[in-house]
Amino acid sequence: MIRKYVYGWPFETEAVTEQIPEAKGIPAYGHVDVEQGFCFTCRLEADDVVYGLGEANRGINKRGNLYVSNCTDCTEHTEELRSLYGAHNFLVVSGQESFGLFVDYPAKLSFDVGYTRTDTLRIFCDRADLYLYVIDGESAYDIVRQFRGIIGRSYIPPRFAFGFGQSRWGYRTADDLRRVADGYRENHIPLDMLYMDIDYMRDYKDFTLNEEAFPDFPEFVREMKERGIRLVPIIDAGVKVEEGYPVYEEGRERRLFCQNEDGSDFTAAAWPGAVHFPDVLNPGARQWFGDQYRFLIDQGIEGFWNDMNEPSIFYTKERLEKFRARMREYVDGAADSMTVFEIGDAVGVLSGNLREDEAVYHQVGEERVRHDRVHNLYGYNMTRAAAEGLARIDPNRRFLLFSRSSYIGMHRFSGIWTGGNRSWWSHLLLNLKMMPSLNMCGFLYAGADLGGFGADTTQDLLLRWLAFGLFMPLMRNHSSLGTRVQECYQFEDTDAFRHVIGVRYRLIPYLYSEYMKAALGNEMYVKPLAFVYPQDKLARETEDQLMLGDEIMIAPVYTQNASGRYVYLPEEMKFVRFLRNGAISEKILGAGHHYVEIALDEVPMFIRRGRCVPVAEPAECVEEIDTSHLRLLGYAGAEHLLYEDDGISLDYEKTGSWRRLRVEGAE
Amino acid sequence: MIRKYVYGWPFETEAVTEQIPEAKGIPAYGHVDVEQGFCFTCRLEADDVVYGLGEANRGINKRGNLYVSNCTDCTEHTEELRSLYGAHNFLVVSGQESFGLFVDYPAKLSFDVGYTRTDTLRIFCDRADLYLYVIDGESAYDIVRQFRGIIGRSYIPPRFAFGFGQSRWGYRTADDLRRVADGYRENHIPLDMLYMDIDYMRDYKDFTLNEEAFPDFPEFVREMKERGIRLVPIIDAGVKVEEGYPVYEEGRERRLFCQNEDGSDFTAAAWPGAVHFPDVLNPGARQWFGDQYRFLIDQGIEGFWNDMNEPSIFYTKERLEKFRARMREYVDGAADSMTVFEIGDAVGVLSGNLREDEAVYHQVGEERVRHDRVHNLYGYNMTRAAAEGLARIDPNRRFLLFSRSSYIGMHRFSGIWTGGNRSWWSHLLLNLKMMPSLNMCGFLYAGADLGGFGADTTQDLLLRWLAFGLFMPLMRNHSSLGTRVQECYQFEDTDAFRHVIGVRYRLIPYLYSEYMKAALGNEMYVKPLAFVYPQDKLARETEDQLMLGDEIMIAPVYTQNASGRYVYLPEEMKFVRFLRNGAISEKILGAGHHYVEIALDEVPMFIRRGRCVPVAEPAECVEEIDTSHLRLLGYAGAEHLLYEDDGISLDYEKTGSWRRLRVEGAE
Repeated sequence: MIRKYVYGWPFETEAVTEQIPEAKGIPAYGHVDVEQGFCFTCRLEADDVVYGLGEANRGINKRGNLYVSNCTDCTEHTEELRSLYGAHNFLVVSGQESFGLFVDYPAKLSFDVGYTRTDTLRIFCDRADLYLYVIDGESAYDIVRQFRGIIGRSYIPPRFAFGFGQSRWGYRTADDLRRVADGYRENHIPLDMLYMDIDYMRDYKDFTLNEEAFPDFPEFVREMKERGIRLVPIIDAGVKVEEGYPVYEEGRERRLFCQNEDGSDFTAAAWPGAVHFPDVLNPGARQWFGDQYRFLIDQGIEGFWNDMNEPSIFYTKERLEKFRARMREYVDGAADSMTVFEIGDAVGVLSGNLREDEAVYHQVGEERVRHDRVHNLYGYNMTRAAAEGLARIDPNRRFLLFSRSSYIGMHRFSGIWTGGNRSWWSHLLLNLKMMPSLNMCGFLYAGADLGGFGADTTQDLLLRWLAFGLFMPLMRNHSSLGTRVQECYQFEDTDAFRHVIGVRYRLIPYLYSEYMKAALGNEMYVKPLAFVYPQDKLARETEDQLMLGDEIMIAPVYTQNASGRYVYLPEEMKFVRFLRNGAISEKILGAGHHYVEIALDEVPMFIRRGRCVPVAEPAECVEEIDTSHLRLLGYAGAEHLLYEDDGISLDYEKTGSWRRLRVEGAE
Repeated sequence: MIRKYVYGWPFETEAVTEQIPEAKGIPAYGHVDVEQGFCFTCRLEADDVVYGLGEANRGINKRGNLYVSNCTDCTEHTEELRSLYGAHNFLVVSGQESFGLFVDYPAKLSFDVGYTRTDTLRIFCDRADLYLYVIDGESAYDIVRQFRGIIGRSYIPPRFAFGFGQSRWGYRTADDLRRVADGYRENHIPLDMLYMDIDYMRDYKDFTLNEEAFPDFPEFVREMKERGIRLVPIIDAGVKVEEGYPVYEEGRERRLFCQNEDGSDFTAAAWPGAVHFPDVLNPGARQWFGDQYRFLIDQGIEGFWNDMNEPSIFYTKERLEKFRARMREYVDGAADSMTVFEIGDAVGVLSGNLREDEAVYHQVGEERVRHDRVHNLYGYNMTRAAAEGLARIDPNRRFLLFSRSSYIGMHRFSGIWTGGNRSWWSHLLLNLKMMPSLNMCGFLYAGADLGGFGADTTQDLLLRWLAFGLFMPLMRNHSSLGTRVQECYQFEDTDAFRHVIGVRYRLIPYLYSEYMKAALGNEMYVKPLAFVYPQDKLARETEDQLMLGDEIMIAPVYTQNASGRYVYLPEEMKFVRFLRNGAISEKILGAGHHYVEIALDEVPMFIRRGRCVPVAEPAECVEEIDTSHLRLLGYAGAEHLLYEDDGISLDYEKTGSWRRLRVEGAE
């Protein structure tokens, strides 16, 4: 049962696709105060667990901290960080009484989940102009399914997007990319995608190519595709201000950029220097921007990643002018007229989200809407622009598409990656913790930068991270300029990498099938243990294991110098290890606590009692996977319903896509 | 067996107190290269564990990363940080073959512990002027004991220093401190010390008092002491440059500050603005600076913490001038003459350690020594200055003293705290991991800022952290200006805090006794499990449990929203929980893996088979602990040798200090 309460004059975010009548009266479960802004308060019982908030920091259980929905380009995801790139305002309180809350409000919104007082949940924002959806259900998972039912079907990527991808900020030329392709192919480490970061463009201009570095791009795309590798270029939100650059000129002439109060185009800086931001909240601008993707589609490209769309701002014209004036006072004044801390602060505020007093506007229908009122919708709508453009360009083709910034609603158009993490072991665990929360909010095609984007990785960290990441839909190794090289063939033990990534390819028939079930049925691809075992107290506390599909549980090693880990089994399961020599070890473990040994080159998973999982032979790219010969791991007599389609068209509902597989023997 | 190899012309750090003859030939275990600087390389076997490096980041097992001994004031202790405040160049490779290495070299030194290649340890620095000590032994712990035997007895604090202390940057006046004392005493939460951060001084001038804020300081010290509370002021390394300030004037006149190449006093900025740094490597300056502590001793003070002694530099005169010149060019030039990143970098380099090209000098005997050659000795010698001064002022009295920066050798003079950590759960675990490594290097009196210095704590984090920190010699709650208030009485559940800190006081007879045994016998107070169970493979991997003294194992809960944790028992132990109602639960657990429930208000510990631990009744300050009525927890028939002395004199060796306690019943 979903009740929709309306406060003030909400902005239509289009997060919810179903028509739900306005509920009368006051919401159950808590108290709403609209005296100053909006505040929903409710009591948390001692044993309540709070799930949700999508791409948010900290635990699967969100209890015990403060979170702020305020899309932000953030470089150090430490425990204290309150805002990440996305804004996903859905949570579930699960206890004696369970209920879900979705606050459809696209500006800054805070969630005090037992932080100020351990027994109190407070959700608050500045303006009481929003939709509040309150969802009753039998269980946390039931509530999630109801919510997923009103926000529309999740994005479905092409099947090749389940392959492994290599990325790095710093690949500059076709030859750089060729060398990476060679490194993988020569070492027989599987690979399906090479990502192109900002350097492929000419001066960081969207929808351009540096033609010296990529002399015959369509030919290069073809060459790579013949090797089973798709190129996936990045698109940034800001359009470079440069006379003669057609995208800029057309946007300016057609008034399609975000504007200042006086109607002039708003200017900020990003990688290209001065940029304007396409006003993607304006349907006309959205259409125009989406159509630009054709430039790369026409050259053979089948996928994109949208970046810098919080939007990320290095500085605005006004901020820079103010800073320069301040620095002028400083250099003209006494040496101690500003402290080093004040100077640091003055630099610090150059970048970062737009502030309320920086009046930037979107044109939405007849209305001019100030940016801070709809801040969290920018990345969503930039990516929607792309998805709608791609659908116009090739209506029955799936494209790979994911975005850094997002809001619920964007899950219908693309996936996400979780942004600039670092080569920290704690970020491997954070990656795990974020995934089910993202699924709750509809983001199924998701993943983190495996190995860590910032900082220097190590062989063991990357191997352990891959052994988790290979279960996630988006599996990509990505790293930053200036960090240790991170391609899998750069390390001592290339055999181990070949094996671990090989396991991904062996599992793709299963993982793809479970993904499609989750997308088509509004289910979660990965779930907290308690969503499957709601009565199990320890399952409710487990923060380092996930259920995947209906068959398996995953429990990666996420600490350094460990040859195993503890694992909690709510019921009997079969402990499976993919060994380096290609063999698969299977062992039944009873319900309860176990310490299991997992070597650095092994991939562990647990098959639930009475279930089975199809496994293919290793392959070096998705197209080469032989799904006609699948081995079934798991319990005798178990059946699995496998989904398989052409992997590229939108014809998901075809009956021939389902196949029933059965393990020989009695159950 | 310890062999000492001499390379070039080492600086005499006085880390080692024993005379060891120079060994001939080349060191066993590895290869030394002195072609370019110094490099020791050796092979690491797959199962080797590397212990040591004292106050270093990451795990108990240091394998798999790069560490740099280069004392640094660092504000975010993320996983990628390579240098902390201390420089502790001792490590032990433990495997089929075990050996210890101590590199007595006071400049920047790097340890690549299987980072570049997983099978290789490399220790390298720029100049081959050092002592290399190579230690053979039967086991890792045997090697540590031998090492401890050559570096001199560890610092022994007064007994009151085992009480709980409250600190916060931001207490400005006597009334601020009175309010904190009231908060503790009114809530009956035990407390022995209140720490005074920089604001007690007049304009941050060492050895001054803000007399408006502290009108009759000796009377205030007395008032607090009558309430069972010692005041512990901070002393910073830099001496403010200010005409009329006697410490500055005397230091300048007597030429006791660090100098520039031209002989002028070196000027940098710290909290007071421009400062000079006492040249604590010069024995005359050390004596002079140590004598200054009398100013506060005479007013009743019995303890100090030495800070900012890496030394921490906000900027130097020259750096600031260069920055201003650069900013002048920027404001006079085109708006894009510097990118925001370049401006940020220009601000960033204002602070931080002195660089080689910034020629600052120490006067050591007849020799003028450039700072970068001896950088890691500054905090050590500032604190040595203090300790030697205190010993002159009151020769048979122990003072509480600990420092932020350190080098091996300083362990004879004081304790350390591990600097500006943050309110992160990962820092609770980091705290645990650092402690045994510090003990290996002689630093027994040590602890972290419980609850976290930076960032906002939560009630549960602070409670869990205290339940670990109560086992550490230095137990202090400290937090930064601008963070959430963190005194224990500020949270909802003051009863829980009273109970948890109360357990500390119940255990002080035992903890103090074990500390004294460790200090007097060159033992470790806390050890990795493998030092006690060297043949146990899982003990060698355990990174979240410690052995304490000869009787107990500790295993704190260090994750949020958990009601228990896994624990590994290398042998049968008694699982003890101090319950909130004052009762103590005891339960025997067999060797192996266990999941144990530990509520947020409980303190867990494990008593080894056949051992016992004396427990007192709760008290509100150390002086009130009744050691004549001790209850023994543990195994029937077990005995404990309890050390007890007057807690303040240096008369440690008195035979009457030992008492044998025995649990009734047969073993």
